[in-house]
Amino acid sequence: MNLVVPPLDRSLENALKNRVDRKTKPVGALGILERLAVQIGLIQGRLDPVLSQARMLVFAGDHGAAKAGVSAYPQDVTWQMVENFLAGGAAINVFSRQNGLQLAVVDAGVAHHFEPRPALIDAKIAHGTANYLEQPAMTDAQCELAMQRGAAIVQQFAERGCNVLGFGEMGIGNTASASLITHGLTEVALTACIGRGTGLDDSGLLRKQELLARAWERFSKSGQPRTPISLLTEFGGFEIAMMAGAMIAAAQARMVLLIDGFIVGAAALVASRVAPSTADYCIFCHRSAEPGHLAQLQAMQAEPLLDLGLRLGEGTGAALAYPLVQAAVAFLNEMASFESAGVADKS
Amino acid sequence: MNLVVPPLDRSLENALKNRVDRKTKPVGALGILERLAVQIGLIQGRLDPVLSQARMLVFAGDHGAAKAGVSAYPQDVTWQMVENFLAGGAAINVFSRQNGLQLAVVDAGVAHHFEPRPALIDAKIAHGTANYLEQPAMTDAQCELAMQRGAAIVQQFAERGCNVLGFGEMGIGNTASASLITHGLTEVALTACIGRGTGLDDSGLLRKQELLARAWERFSKSGQPRTPISLLTEFGGFEIAMMAGAMIAAAQARMVLLIDGFIVGAAALVASRVAPSTADYCIFCHRSAEPGHLAQLQAMQAEPLLDLGLRLGEGTGAALAYPLVQAAVAFLNEMASFESAGVADKS
Repeated sequence: MNLVVPPLDRSLENALKNRVDRKTKPVGALGILERLAVQIGLIQGRLDPVLSQARMLVFAGDHGAAKAGVSAYPQDVTWQMVENFLAGGAAINVFSRQNGLQLAVVDAGVAHHFEPRPALIDAKIAHGTANYLEQPAMTDAQCELAMQRGAAIVQQFAERGCNVLGFGEMGIGNTASASLITHGLTEVALTACIGRGTGLDDSGLLRKQELLARAWERFSKSGQPRTPISLLTEFGGFEIAMMAGAMIAAAQARMVLLIDGFIVGAAALVASRVAPSTADYCIFCHRSAEPGHLAQLQAMQAEPLLDLGLRLGEGTGAALAYPLVQAAVAFLNEMASFESAGVADKS
Repeated sequence: MNLVVPPLDRSLENALKNRVDRKTKPVGALGILERLAVQIGLIQGRLDPVLSQARMLVFAGDHGAAKAGVSAYPQDVTWQMVENFLAGGAAINVFSRQNGLQLAVVDAGVAHHFEPRPALIDAKIAHGTANYLEQPAMTDAQCELAMQRGAAIVQQFAERGCNVLGFGEMGIGNTASASLITHGLTEVALTACIGRGTGLDDSGLLRKQELLARAWERFSKSGQPRTPISLLTEFGGFEIAMMAGAMIAAAQARMVLLIDGFIVGAAALVASRVAPSTADYCIFCHRSAEPGHLAQLQAMQAEPLLDLGLRLGEGTGAALAYPLVQAAVAFLNEMASFESAGVADKS
């Protein structure tokens, strides 16, 4: 796939900042929302940006390493939660409905056969990745295919007029993959990139740390170069690789990307290392309670919108933050200026 | 007015927590939203709380001290911004519209005559407070009347079925009043309670600090007792006193109170000192960039929902946080449980 994302065109930056500053409020008084309004204006190349056909895509995949005990939940929960998404009962359904994001689930590689459903996109690469404790999670060809399929899905939505895309994920064991990728790309100590995921206790956390240290050691001894793509291939999952490809394509299509927490953040980190300008299109929606998220945010110099102690994934942080994104666009387009409202400016 | 707020009935607490924990997500994974869901359930005394007829009330008042130079903006901006609110062009209009809060402006004491308008509630106590550099901002009778009128407004909305109330304010000079009240109630150093308000430069900030130190000195020497009500009376404004009365009445009516930033926070601090259980009904919506807000939050042991560097007032932080409040109620009511969705629980 095409991995080039052109740099953000900043020619409207001053005009956008001026538009923000003439609104009936003290300069800077809307804080982070002001920066957000300018960013979205630049992404769309217009002073009056419009968010249209906002979508939430939840990428799901299974992990060979899950059976080794890196998660508090059994692997079957991945497909069971996909069914929950399709039935409308999960947190991401509730928050997407509430905030006007149309939700679709992408089967990137769940170890389960699903009957076709309108909200399910079949992009399955395989029935789960291989166990990275023993071998690379996927082949080079699988990684490439996952990225391509992610890109193709996004291109279809872009062609139909969608210009905002929320990224979410489901995959028992995928905080472990995200930890390994984050360590590989940020040089932050592996232990500092590993958290309790869905809720490991102390002994579970120790076991996860030991397993991931072994996985990292196997990779280190393999002689593979440490690149964003090789890390994806080594540690998976299909859902992370597919999101990375989807993000690059979304940036190419000048969409606004709503980045959720730790696992989606791992995909964003990969994408922004492959195509650095991708990050200019990203809105980092929340600060996850997973400790490795901090390493990602620092690496991407990102300041997230929400800090609510969330650690659910699914895209919930992105869906919850979306009203703030809408608010940034709304104030830019709808607020009166000092002139239009007849309000005296600062003396 | 009746200043008694009964303690929150906590009899449903365990049942609410259990309901939250059986949802299809790891225990605690929705972070602060889980605490919020339980709080709202307790406020309404039901496992399936409902937010109905949500309203945003913006209380406006003028300050005699404004002409002494405690603000970067001229006093006329208060009434001009009220007109902006009534015309729909201010930030609070945009965010209230977006998030489904019906907005009304309460004239608590603006130094201006307004023609009647549907969204304007005339509760004017006087054309601005007196200058607290020279004398108390209001009389005891005015303070009592302001609180009573605030309570009466809320009672009317409660009778009509409204159970969520956002609090906002407008009043050139009112960060100065909030600073003095906060200092008086928290013992935090006055200087640490004073910020740049709408955007004072360094010399303006110094001048504000000097003026407020003088005002505090006058009060100290007056021999008045330092009570929540005497501080309100001394330093105003009418909008803060009216909000304090309104908050107490709203808690009595078991409403959910959306508390904005620094100035609304000063009213909440007064209300919670007068009637401590009031704080149980409050949702602290955002962390203001005004430094004195921290002292208030610590005094009320409050952890706000948003931290976006906002310092606009008007209720904007409350309006922006409202979707998170709705999300807390929505996940409680709409999410499937492990049992209903057929998802395996933690192994």
